[in-house]
Amino acid sequence: MSAPDAAARTVRGRVVVAYDGSAYQGWQTQKTGCGVQQVLEAALKRIFPGVGPVHGSSRTDTGVHAQGLVAHFDVPIEEWRMTSRKLVLAVNAHLPDDVRIMRAARASPTFHARFDAAGKEYRYQIWNAPAHHPLLRRTSWHVPRPLEVKLMREAASRLVGTHDFRAFTNNPGYARSDCTRTLSACRVSRRGPLITVSIEGDGFLYKMCRNIAGTLVQAGLGKLSPTDIDGILAQRDRRVAGMTAPAHGLVLWRVRYGKKSSQIHLDSTEDTDE
Amino acid sequence: MSAPDAAARTVRGRVVVAYDGSAYQGWQTQKTGCGVQQVLEAALKRIFPGVGPVHGSSRTDTGVHAQGLVAHFDVPIEEWRMTSRKLVLAVNAHLPDDVRIMRAARASPTFHARFDAAGKEYRYQIWNAPAHHPLLRRTSWHVPRPLEVKLMREAASRLVGTHDFRAFTNNPGYARSDCTRTLSACRVSRRGPLITVSIEGDGFLYKMCRNIAGTLVQAGLGKLSPTDIDGILAQRDRRVAGMTAPAHGLVLWRVRYGKKSSQIHLDSTEDTDE
Repeated sequence: MSAPDAAARTVRGRVVVAYDGSAYQGWQTQKTGCGVQQVLEAALKRIFPGVGPVHGSSRTDTGVHAQGLVAHFDVPIEEWRMTSRKLVLAVNAHLPDDVRIMRAARASPTFHARFDAAGKEYRYQIWNAPAHHPLLRRTSWHVPRPLEVKLMREAASRLVGTHDFRAFTNNPGYARSDCTRTLSACRVSRRGPLITVSIEGDGFLYKMCRNIAGTLVQAGLGKLSPTDIDGILAQRDRRVAGMTAPAHGLVLWRVRYGKKSSQIHLDSTEDTDE
Repeated sequence: MSAPDAAARTVRGRVVVAYDGSAYQGWQTQKTGCGVQQVLEAALKRIFPGVGPVHGSSRTDTGVHAQGLVAHFDVPIEEWRMTSRKLVLAVNAHLPDDVRIMRAARASPTFHARFDAAGKEYRYQIWNAPAHHPLLRRTSWHVPRPLEVKLMREAASRLVGTHDFRAFTNNPGYARSDCTRTLSACRVSRRGPLITVSIEGDGFLYKMCRNIAGTLVQAGLGKLSPTDIDGILAQRDRRVAGMTAPAHGLVLWRVRYGKKSSQIHLDSTEDTDE
């Protein structure tokens, strides 16, 4: 089947997916364990027997959550019979309760959830009190020692901009590839014991958000000074940055697309990100 | 042992308790299933072998959560050897991860978690979108049809003040008792699809918060008018108020004490409340 034929006979759907990552090996199906992608494909197949593979905006890591991951897939045109609203209800009826399609839309035939993404936002939650909050135990990192948010903010501000983030990735395979990324924002907010780090950028390296969160916590504990961030970025060596924060505090919050492909807000750029 | 003797030989401790109520038959131990009280007593006994029974500020119902329940208990003076900070760590080490002591303090020998409470706040969370958020599925009620928050607020404002809340309790045993309670506040706020109802009062009848939440949702759906609230209160008949909202959306948020017993903020008044 030639490409124009295929395009003529299929409809491209795009969905915003939210999930509790606790029970999953991340978005992508691994050799062992189950990925959210696999669960979503199975549910879509119940509604659209001829559906093709599901392409996600981001490969979240084991245990990481999502509120606004974007995915696309192709459905034979004769199977695409329902409204977007009904599609959401129908697919969700076949999903486990820790995975949900929040919205759905028909996309342009060339829309790509990963390649078209212009930027995305991750949020990392920290519960900073002697005891962990039971209702946030699956979605926040428990840091019992007091954190100085002012120091965390100073450190965060030094990460904003275009930098080589090699020191903030765990993937040694990046040795010879380009690790330059642009963070448009890195904000630290506090409401009582709950500290939220919001990180926005055009793309993210493997475990980059969790390494940023771990480094900001070490700044908040006084173990490194905010001005150390400049040196860490310059040294481009994973060993000099802070620890990797645990996966369960991280949520892929939303993915942003350019005007070209903007029916619903959503998605991601890298094939390497968290 | 006479009362003065007992007072001289024991120290009264008070703690703020948070829990994910999903796995519990509420605060109090029932004939079947496990109560949070029982779990907390077992953990305290590991640290204080001579500890007496634990008295809670509120009897939350099966599946209801807490962030700020208050409890007190007596410990033989010779066993009370650690700081409050260490007590928190020590007791939590013996609790399952869905129950936590958030704070602890030594209370006056006459402090009573239930009888001294001056007021408390409950919060009820509603997720108002076609699909339920997977990360909030255990702590919010999923209402898929659009809610008009303005109508909910108008209805809520009519509940504030001193009223006979008989129409808002499920306990027929109240037939001859006083159901007058004072709500000092009933607020409805919205952040995206998440609607939070905050209810503050001097005391609450059995299932009163859940019946208020269910009634406000019916107002938000246009199934009853905000002005109907006046008639519902006047009729004092459970059958005329709205439905009972599910337990898992409700959190006992905090308990407030008068100056007399105010070392830490916490607690509840009624022996009949949720």
